[in-house]
Amino acid sequence: MTDPSPHPDGSFASDNYAGAHPEVLAALAEANTGFAPSYGADPWTARLGEVLRGHFGDRAEVYPVFNGTGANVVALQALVPKWGAVVCAEGAHIATDEAGAPERVAGLKLLTVPTVDGKLTPELVDRQAWGFGEEHRAQPAAVSLTQSTEVGTTYTLEELHTLSEHAHSLGMRVHVDGARLANAAAHLGCTLREMVTGTGIDAVCVGGTKDGGLFAEAVVVCDPAVAPGVGYIRKMDTQLASKTRFLSAQLLALYDGDLWLRCARHANTMADRLARGLATVPGVALTHPVEANGVFAIVPAALAGAVRRTHHFYDWDRERGEVRLMCSWATTEEAVDDLLAAFRRAAGEGSPPPGLAGPGRAEPGQD
Amino acid sequence: MTDPSPHPDGSFASDNYAGAHPEVLAALAEANTGFAPSYGADPWTARLGEVLRGHFGDRAEVYPVFNGTGANVVALQALVPKWGAVVCAEGAHIATDEAGAPERVAGLKLLTVPTVDGKLTPELVDRQAWGFGEEHRAQPAAVSLTQSTEVGTTYTLEELHTLSEHAHSLGMRVHVDGARLANAAAHLGCTLREMVTGTGIDAVCVGGTKDGGLFAEAVVVCDPAVAPGVGYIRKMDTQLASKTRFLSAQLLALYDGDLWLRCARHANTMADRLARGLATVPGVALTHPVEANGVFAIVPAALAGAVRRTHHFYDWDRERGEVRLMCSWATTEEAVDDLLAAFRRAAGEGSPPPGLAGPGRAEPGQD
Amino acid sequence: MTDPSPHPDGSFASDNYAGAHPEVLAALAEANTGFAPSYGADPWTARLGEVLRGHFGDRAEVYPVFNGTGANVVALQALVPKWGAVVCAEGAHIATDEAGAPERVAGLKLLTVPTVDGKLTPELVDRQAWGFGEEHRAQPAAVSLTQSTEVGTTYTLEELHTLSEHAHSLGMRVHVDGARLANAAAHLGCTLREMVTGTGIDAVCVGGTKDGGLFAEAVVVCDPAVAPGVGYIRKMDTQLASKTRFLSAQLLALYDGDLWLRCARHANTMADRLARGLATVPGVALTHPVEANGVFAIVPAALAGAVRRTHHFYDWDRERGEVRLMCSWATTEEAVDDLLAAFRRAAGEGSPPPGLAGPGRAEPGQD
Amino acid sequence: MTDPSPHPDGSFASDNYAGAHPEVLAALAEANTGFAPSYGADPWTARLGEVLRGHFGDRAEVYPVFNGTGANVVALQALVPKWGAVVCAEGAHIATDEAGAPERVAGLKLLTVPTVDGKLTPELVDRQAWGFGEEHRAQPAAVSLTQSTEVGTTYTLEELHTLSEHAHSLGMRVHVDGARLANAAAHLGCTLREMVTGTGIDAVCVGGTKDGGLFAEAVVVCDPAVAPGVGYIRKMDTQLASKTRFLSAQLLALYDGDLWLRCARHANTMADRLARGLATVPGVALTHPVEANGVFAIVPAALAGAVRRTHHFYDWDRERGEVRLMCSWATTEEAVDDLLAAFRRAAGEGSPPPGLAGPGRAEPGQD
Repeated sequence: MTDPSPHPDGSFASDNYAGAHPEVLAALAEANTGFAPSYGADPWTARLGEVLRGHFGDRAEVYPVFNGTGANVVALQALVPKWGAVVCAEGAHIATDEAGAPERVAGLKLLTVPTVDGKLTPELVDRQAWGFGEEHRAQPAAVSLTQSTEVGTTYTLEELHTLSEHAHSLGMRVHVDGARLANAAAHLGCTLREMVTGTGIDAVCVGGTKDGGLFAEAVVVCDPAVAPGVGYIRKMDTQLASKTRFLSAQLLALYDGDLWLRCARHANTMADRLARGLATVPGVALTHPVEANGVFAIVPAALAGAVRRTHHFYDWDRERGEVRLMCSWATTEEAVDDLLAAFRRAAGEGSPPPGLAGPGRAEPGQD
Repeated sequence: MTDPSPHPDGSFASDNYAGAHPEVLAALAEANTGFAPSYGADPWTARLGEVLRGHFGDRAEVYPVFNGTGANVVALQALVPKWGAVVCAEGAHIATDEAGAPERVAGLKLLTVPTVDGKLTPELVDRQAWGFGEEHRAQPAAVSLTQSTEVGTTYTLEELHTLSEHAHSLGMRVHVDGARLANAAAHLGCTLREMVTGTGIDAVCVGGTKDGGLFAEAVVVCDPAVAPGVGYIRKMDTQLASKTRFLSAQLLALYDGDLWLRCARHANTMADRLARGLATVPGVALTHPVEANGVFAIVPAALAGAVRRTHHFYDWDRERGEVRLMCSWATTEEAVDDLLAAFRRAAGEGSPPPGLAGPGRAEPGQD
Repeated sequence: MTDPSPHPDGSFASDNYAGAHPEVLAALAEANTGFAPSYGADPWTARLGEVLRGHFGDRAEVYPVFNGTGANVVALQALVPKWGAVVCAEGAHIATDEAGAPERVAGLKLLTVPTVDGKLTPELVDRQAWGFGEEHRAQPAAVSLTQSTEVGTTYTLEELHTLSEHAHSLGMRVHVDGARLANAAAHLGCTLREMVTGTGIDAVCVGGTKDGGLFAEAVVVCDPAVAPGVGYIRKMDTQLASKTRFLSAQLLALYDGDLWLRCARHANTMADRLARGLATVPGVALTHPVEANGVFAIVPAALAGAVRRTHHFYDWDRERGEVRLMCSWATTEEAVDDLLAAFRRAAGEGSPPPGLAGPGRAEPGQD
Repeated sequence: MTDPSPHPDGSFASDNYAGAHPEVLAALAEANTGFAPSYGADPWTARLGEVLRGHFGDRAEVYPVFNGTGANVVALQALVPKWGAVVCAEGAHIATDEAGAPERVAGLKLLTVPTVDGKLTPELVDRQAWGFGEEHRAQPAAVSLTQSTEVGTTYTLEELHTLSEHAHSLGMRVHVDGARLANAAAHLGCTLREMVTGTGIDAVCVGGTKDGGLFAEAVVVCDPAVAPGVGYIRKMDTQLASKTRFLSAQLLALYDGDLWLRCARHANTMADRLARGLATVPGVALTHPVEANGVFAIVPAALAGAVRRTHHFYDWDRERGEVRLMCSWATTEEAVDDLLAAFRRAAGEGSPPPGLAGPGRAEPGQD
């Protein structure tokens, strides 16, 4: 089978274009030893529970699932009553990229608010968090936020804490879509416990797929009292794997140790390198702070077209001429520099400005 | 990590207690080469389409998914209108073991009929296929059958053909839950095309997980005209993998070649060996013909209890004293013989009757 | 507009072929005085709450809805968790005549059991009430029974009490489809409180439509602690009327006084008269005890066909030759006698056997 | 029963605070003649089909239902595929006031756009009508617009025509929430056929409740080819009445003749009178053109509070200080003038400016 990409390690299309980290594959092979109980009654899943309780607190319940959409639907369905609605950003993955799964599978109503940088604030939440007790209004019951966000920004610990407090003061739960949770922790330089349990988040979907896995995510409920029945819901939402050990083994490879952090840190560093270089390309303007593994920029159409002859990346907002460039655990410095060179060539420049995009430029705590 | 099973290769609890076949794991490693487009736009998935069209016919559409419940829900949702109902056996997996996923995710109404051996007949279908045009009755729109069935029996080609014709004559579609489709083909000694497309089946869920995979199934629509929108439905039912190549690679390992058949044939042969041996154990009575990889038998409670001290298997019908013993691609002759010895010991016998349970006793075309 | 029925007061097709009782229509006119708050914040609905609390106990919550299917779906959705299933008779209206509304609107899984006479017993419930805690099985969370049943039988107080106790001992709730609740009370000669609250039922759908209304039913929750959110669920299930006063006024006409009982008693008496007469027609065999307003009988095809030239009634089980003859508040003695005469004529008889089907034959407490 | 309102004919809270028109009640009484087939197989429903085909065209299919939420859910569910989404205004009733019924009952995804005056335009539709063929996006399949809108504005025939053409050019269907369809026709001075069928609308929910009914709406499908299965969907969405004749009789009272138009015209005239008067009250500013039966205005908080001592009306946008004042078929000139007087008194004025708010000031074609 030939590789489809003209630049094997150069795809900036998505962090899910990357393969699996070798350590994750090795863990699958190790887990493939004889028979094991199915549906999560195996030792790998038991160990995963211990490991993630180490990350998220002793009360945490851990449910491996297949993918991010499944994780979000299961977690949210557990967090809200049958008549509940979920307040989220207009650009939240659950609102824009899950084909209506939250509505159709879980009967959830999404109440969206526009944001500037993908991040909710108490004020933005309040634009939809009203009408409590009015039977005509789907009852706002949870706030869902994405960490890091869909536009590569990251909530600070204080922002998370403030949002959680605000939501709880309204009787609402807090859910985090953490497909890129590791990138957020890498950016913030904090532990997962500080970021999640410490800020009052009730349930988080912990990403594994983008961070070096094949496909594996975990629904982690920090406070089981507010999210009953996740086991039943996971099954009825088609997200229970018979050979669960092979999901858990992937997540163990990542989270029983620091592979999760190394992968995320690397991806963030590559994005930082890319952003610093791009910022110097004439006509290119970054549109969001680069606080995770994605770079968003306005790029003139002719320039984007020229670079696309050799590199793959997606439009984000065609009208504005905004593109998205994603880095992953598998992105290399050479690939970043090669992409930057292509940008510069297309923009009529032959060489990088001195002192930019060199190795080691990522600030501590920024990657 | 220590193996949880006291008898590493001896679990007869379920075919999903087995791990993955080494060739499947190797295929994952091979597919892990650099970047590849996500969500199925990769060359492995393209190749899988070709391979399964080779098995199921040129018009077939192929959609890799995560698991059997997901496959069934997606396929059935595509086959029936919003007001449709599905006729199935009372013991069908979709009715008994999917936690209501068909009802809750897809809004399907299941119309069940009791069966003797897990198999529907036109007469049994007719017990629920009525009320066409009556708005009070969920409209019977599809027949769902399991091949091989949940009780280890297998529809003959003629039975499948007759059922399809009958369903089609009523304007209904035919769906096959094929979690053990390979075992059926191995038993019948026919091709998948003869069994599925050749008998008029409209859509089939092709199993990979139990037959040597980690987790991978495929929804195969033989006639896309009768099952529109599967791509959309797969996504909204949470069954679309971002790194789809890792699902397709597993299925390629199985179906691009004869691994699917080798695995299934072995499992069937082991079940046959087990059944022949069990049939000679005093007090044990087989309850269904052994036409796939499962053995069902009435076992006196004391006997079952004694064997369970060392071997793991499930009750099937506690009231009747019926147990289920499953074989898989990973079950060894030694494990079977060891289990049989345990049964005989517990039943007060020291040695097998001569000429039974020996190697090579499975009939050609029967495994 | 001409009346469609050749025998204006003679339809035995269904109790919903009857019109509205004049007192109900009068109540609508009385309620049509000026403006009133919508969505149930009106004095008629407040009064209805008082009245039905008089019937069902001080803690009862009362929610007027449009129709029986809506009432059942709302009540059951409130009683069970998201992963819940409902055990009911195979012939329950919710299972056979609601087009999958419970599954599609409320995501409920129905677990059906065959019954002899439409009535569940603890033993029959146990055939489906198992698998608690197993995530593969939709969790049995409520028992739904119909009082009076779909085949004209009525649970005794003791049977209801035993069923409730059994369900509660399993942690399950008890729901009653009471489209013909009044007929049951009329038959049993008891109060609604004795029949419902007194036997431990958790929620009941109180019929109004068949018992003299135009369309009005009420979901009555006896113990609000076990059925939260009914107000929200009623709205999201499309069953909240803007001008709720016109639902409440109908129910007040029936239940604030004894019209509900008079109507039901009359209907039962007519059914009893009809049954006694039919029992003497050669070839006719009653199939169920007549304990409400419906008569079920095996009738030879030729005989049924002959009577149908002038009278309208439905087949119930075509294979067995069983028909259903319904009486209502609007059925007259003359109509019953006219129907019986038609049966006798068709059966070759000219006159009723002496002493049968005469007025006053209904036993006290039996109508 | 005492009337709850201190000003019996003066409620401006909602047009559903009004009772039923006497001609509608009389029609119910007339329809209450003996037995009639249930579930719509009655002569009133047959006649209603003829009458509404007279209004909406010969191909129209007519389905009486209970209420507006039910009508919208049924119609939209019939118009879009299982993977479909509905583009609508942010303030559309289906998005804000139906407690998530479209999402929960019908699995619909709503794609909302902010509007200035409650009206969609092709440009606004395009903000959500994209991503066709992308499986991650719920597929835009219908445009839903409200006529007259939730803020009392009305689409012109040309606007409707342009929207329909635009939607159809995208392969989308057009649905109209016509809870106040009569008010729109009254305002435009056109026939229903010109407004609906003539502009290319595919399905419309025809209001009866607010326009003088008790509760009765009709789903009218102009082109049955694009909305299959409405009969099944109505039943499974709990919106099929057993005694359908009593829904049809109400709608006949309105639409078999000109009562629908008289009621709507009167309501519009009252709103016009109210708006003209309000416009002269110091501090009050109308926020939308008054093109139906609702008046929206910014009112200083102190002023609103003073008037509310004697009159009932709702806040619309508390932040902006916007209130909503609804007129109905039952609103009298005296009530309007009384309300205006209250406003003027509270605003410190004793008498109306000369020449305003007098009778007959509504322009032809404006009411």
